[in-house]
Amino acid sequence: MENKFDFGMVGLGVMGRNLLLNIADHGFAAIGFDKDISKGEALEASASKGTTVKGVDSLADMIAQLKTPRKIMMLVPAGAPVDAVINDLLPLVEPGDIIIDGGNSHFSDTVRRVKSVEGKNIHFMGMGVSGGEHGARTGPSIMPGGDVAAWEHVKPILESIAAKVNDEPCVAYMGKDAAGHYVKMVHNGIEYAIMQLISEVYDFMKRGLEMNNDEIHQAFKQWNEGELQSFLMEITASIFTKKDDKGDGYLVDAILDKAGSKGTGKWTSQEAMNLPVSLPTIDMAVAMRDISGYKAERVQAADIYKPKVKSFAGSKEKILPQLQDALYAATLICYAQGLAMLQKASVEHKMDIPLHDVVKIWRGGCIIRSSMLEVFTAAFKKNDTLPNILLDKKIAAIAKKKVAGLRKLAQQFSAAKVPSAALTSSLAYFDAYTSARMSTNLIQAQRDFFGAHTYQRLDREGSFHTEWE
Amino acid sequence: MENKFDFGMVGLGVMGRNLLLNIADHGFAAIGFDKDISKGEALEASASKGTTVKGVDSLADMIAQLKTPRKIMMLVPAGAPVDAVINDLLPLVEPGDIIIDGGNSHFSDTVRRVKSVEGKNIHFMGMGVSGGEHGARTGPSIMPGGDVAAWEHVKPILESIAAKVNDEPCVAYMGKDAAGHYVKMVHNGIEYAIMQLISEVYDFMKRGLEMNNDEIHQAFKQWNEGELQSFLMEITASIFTKKDDKGDGYLVDAILDKAGSKGTGKWTSQEAMNLPVSLPTIDMAVAMRDISGYKAERVQAADIYKPKVKSFAGSKEKILPQLQDALYAATLICYAQGLAMLQKASVEHKMDIPLHDVVKIWRGGCIIRSSMLEVFTAAFKKNDTLPNILLDKKIAAIAKKKVAGLRKLAQQFSAAKVPSAALTSSLAYFDAYTSARMSTNLIQAQRDFFGAHTYQRLDREGSFHTEWE
Repeated sequence: MENKFDFGMVGLGVMGRNLLLNIADHGFAAIGFDKDISKGEALEASASKGTTVKGVDSLADMIAQLKTPRKIMMLVPAGAPVDAVINDLLPLVEPGDIIIDGGNSHFSDTVRRVKSVEGKNIHFMGMGVSGGEHGARTGPSIMPGGDVAAWEHVKPILESIAAKVNDEPCVAYMGKDAAGHYVKMVHNGIEYAIMQLISEVYDFMKRGLEMNNDEIHQAFKQWNEGELQSFLMEITASIFTKKDDKGDGYLVDAILDKAGSKGTGKWTSQEAMNLPVSLPTIDMAVAMRDISGYKAERVQAADIYKPKVKSFAGSKEKILPQLQDALYAATLICYAQGLAMLQKASVEHKMDIPLHDVVKIWRGGCIIRSSMLEVFTAAFKKNDTLPNILLDKKIAAIAKKKVAGLRKLAQQFSAAKVPSAALTSSLAYFDAYTSARMSTNLIQAQRDFFGAHTYQRLDREGSFHTEWE
Repeated sequence: MENKFDFGMVGLGVMGRNLLLNIADHGFAAIGFDKDISKGEALEASASKGTTVKGVDSLADMIAQLKTPRKIMMLVPAGAPVDAVINDLLPLVEPGDIIIDGGNSHFSDTVRRVKSVEGKNIHFMGMGVSGGEHGARTGPSIMPGGDVAAWEHVKPILESIAAKVNDEPCVAYMGKDAAGHYVKMVHNGIEYAIMQLISEVYDFMKRGLEMNNDEIHQAFKQWNEGELQSFLMEITASIFTKKDDKGDGYLVDAILDKAGSKGTGKWTSQEAMNLPVSLPTIDMAVAMRDISGYKAERVQAADIYKPKVKSFAGSKEKILPQLQDALYAATLICYAQGLAMLQKASVEHKMDIPLHDVVKIWRGGCIIRSSMLEVFTAAFKKNDTLPNILLDKKIAAIAKKKVAGLRKLAQQFSAAKVPSAALTSSLAYFDAYTSARMSTNLIQAQRDFFGAHTYQRLDREGSFHTEWE
C-alpha cells in the first residue's frame, strides 16, 4: 500500500468528519478512522467531487497509508477516550510523527499528556477548534498549542482550512504546553458569558419592555448591523423569526428554560479562581445556567413569592439605545476578564500566549467572533503584554461612554425584577477595577480580628497583627 | 508508663494548643505532640491551674500514654502533612483507636483518606472546627463527620468543649464520609460571602453616604442589637472604634485593600459548580477578593477612568433602615445558597447531612453565628429535607419584606458607582429563583443553533433539534 495521504483523523463523529472534509476540500488527501465502519462510509459519501477522502476501520490501516511525518488528529470525547487513542497510536507511529488532540480536553489533561509522551520522539499538540459543525466544514477558528516544531508541519494545512478575515487565516500558534486547549477554554467561558448577557437583555425586552418576538428580532437585527455585530447577535436575531413546527407561534417560546452545559464554562471559572483572576461575568453565566436547572423549585418559589415583573414606564425608543450600550459595555467587560485571565495564565503556566494572535484568530470562524475583536486586536498590536484591555486608552474612551448605559440599565433591571446577574456583575467588576481603593481593608481587619491572619498597611511595608479586643 | 491520658493532639500550633487546653479545662487529661519541643513546653506553661496537660516531642511517647481506644486529633497544615502524620500513626495505633483530622482539609482529600484506612481496623474522622484561636480555647463550633462508631467515643469530650447555645452544645454528627470537612467548607464559603456583603455596605456608607468611622460604628452596633445580630456584625462594629497606634486616625483606614485567602471560599464555589448548584453570592465574594489583589492595576485604571463616586442625595435617616434590610436580605440569600448546596451534596455524595443539626450547631462558636440561624433551625426542624430555605413559608414572609430594601439599595449602589457584586448577585439569585420561567430558553436555542446540542420543550417530553437556518 502506498503512503499517499496527507492527513489522518481518528474519530469520525460530525466534528471529525467535517474537519476532514474541509481538509480534503483544500486539496489534501484525507483519511479517517472510526471503529464504526458506517462512519467511514458516511465520510466518503459526503466528500466533495474531485477530493481524495477515504474511511477505514483499522487504525493500523490508516497509519500505513499516511505520508511521513504523519499528521494525525483525534476528535474523540474528552477524557479516557483520548488516552486510549494515544495508547493505541504510540506503538504504530514513527519518530517525528505528529499527534494532535483536537477535542475538548481539559488543559490539565493536556499538560499531563505532553509530559507523558516526552522522550518518545513523537510530536504532540493540544488544539482548540471553535465554530460548531458548520464551522468545521467551512472554516473554523483553530487554536493549536504545544510542540512548536510540529506546528510548522501542520501550519499549511490548518491555514488553508481556517476561517479567513481580511485574507488572514484564523489560526495561529497559541503557545507552549497546553496553550491551545487553555485558549479554547477561555474562549468558551467568554461564550457562556455573552450568551448569558444576551439572554438577560432578552428577558428585559420580553418581561420588562413587553416587546413581542418580532420586535425583539428587529432590535437584535439592527444591533447586529452596528458596533454589536457578532455571530451570536446574528443567530439570536434569527432565532426570533423561527416558527414552531410542532405548535403555534415561535419556537423560542416552546423551549424549556433549563440550560445544558458541556462544562467548559465551569472549567474557566474554576481555573480563574486558582490563578487567581476575577471573572465575575463568566462565574455568573455558570451560576445562572445552574439555577435554570432547578426548574421545579423555581416554579414552587414563584408560587410562594408571586413576583410581578414591573414593566418599564418610560420611553421604549429612549431605553433601547441605552440597552444596546449596556450590552456592549458588559460584553466588552467580559472579554476584558477573559483576556486578562489569558495574560495571567501565560505567565503563571509558562505558556507564552501571544494575546495579539488570540484576538486576531477569534475574529472569524469561532462562536465569539465579533467586530469588537478588531478593537482588541489593535490594542494588543500596540502592547502584547497589556494586562487588561480596560487599560488601553482607546478602549477606555469607548468603555467610559458605554458603561453609562450599563449603569442606567442595571438599575432598571433591578427595579423590574428581571434577574441580571451577568450584567450587574460586569458593572461591579468595572467599578471595582476602577477603584484605586476598594473596601477590602475591612475584610482584612475582620480576618485579623478573628483569625490573626495579619494585614498589610498602606503606609509601610510588612505584615501586621493587632489585638483588636 | 501509665496509660492515663484521655485525649492526644498532634500539632501544637495555636489552634491545636488552644483546643487541647479547652479539653483539659473540661477535666480531661490532655497530651500533645509536636516535633518542636518548645511548643510542648508552651502548651504546659499555658495550662489552667489544676488541669492535666503534657507536651511531648515523640509521637510514640504520646501514643504510649493514651487510654485505649486512643483519641488522637491532628491539627496540622492541610495537604501532605496530614498524610504524613497518618502514615506515622498507623504503625503505632491499635485496633479501635480513633484518628481525627481536625484541620482545614479539602473534603476530597478526606474522602481519599477514609478509603485508604478502610480495613485497617482504626476509626477515622474528618472534622471542621470554627471559631478561630479564641473560639478553640473557649468554645468552638465543631463539625465532625465520618466514622459514626468513633463519634460515640469522642462525643462526650467534644460536647463538653463546644460552644453552648441555650445549654445545647454546638457540635453534632454531620454525616458520613467527608461530611465534617464538607460542612466546614460551606461554612467558610458563607463566611466569605457575609464578609463581602458587609464590606460592600461599608463602602456605600463611606463613599456613598460619606459617613465617618464613628457613624459607621454606630450603625453596625445598632444593627448588631437587632435582627442582624451576629459575630461578624459585632466585630465589624468594634473594628471602627480601633485607633491606629502607628499613625493618626483609625486603624481600618491604614489597612491595605488587598484580601488574603486560605482558599476555602474558592473550594466552595468550585465544588458548587461541580454539583452543580448556584452560589452567586459566594462566587462574587471570591471574585472580589481576587480583584482586590490587582491593586497596581486598579490604581492605574482609576487614573484613566477617574470615577467620581456619587454621594447619596436623599435622607440618610431614611436610607439606613433600607440598607439594613438589604444586608439582611442578601445575608439570608447567601445562607440559602450554602444550605441548598449542603442539601444537594448530602444526596450526591451520599453523606446524609442532617441540615437541622448543621444550622443548630452554627448558632454558636463559629464565625458565621448569627441570630438568623434560629430562624433557619426552626425551618429545618419542620422539614429536614427542605431544598432551599427560601421555600419555607415563614422565611418567605421575611424575605419578601427585606428583599424590597435590597432591590432599592442595589439601584443606589449602581448609581453611586460603589461596586456591589455580592449584593446585586444575591438579588439576581432571588429574582432567578422566584422566576417560574427564566430566559434560558434562548440559551438553549443558541446552543442548538450553533452546536446541535438539542433542547427540551415545555409542552412535551423528549430531546429536539432544529435546523435553524
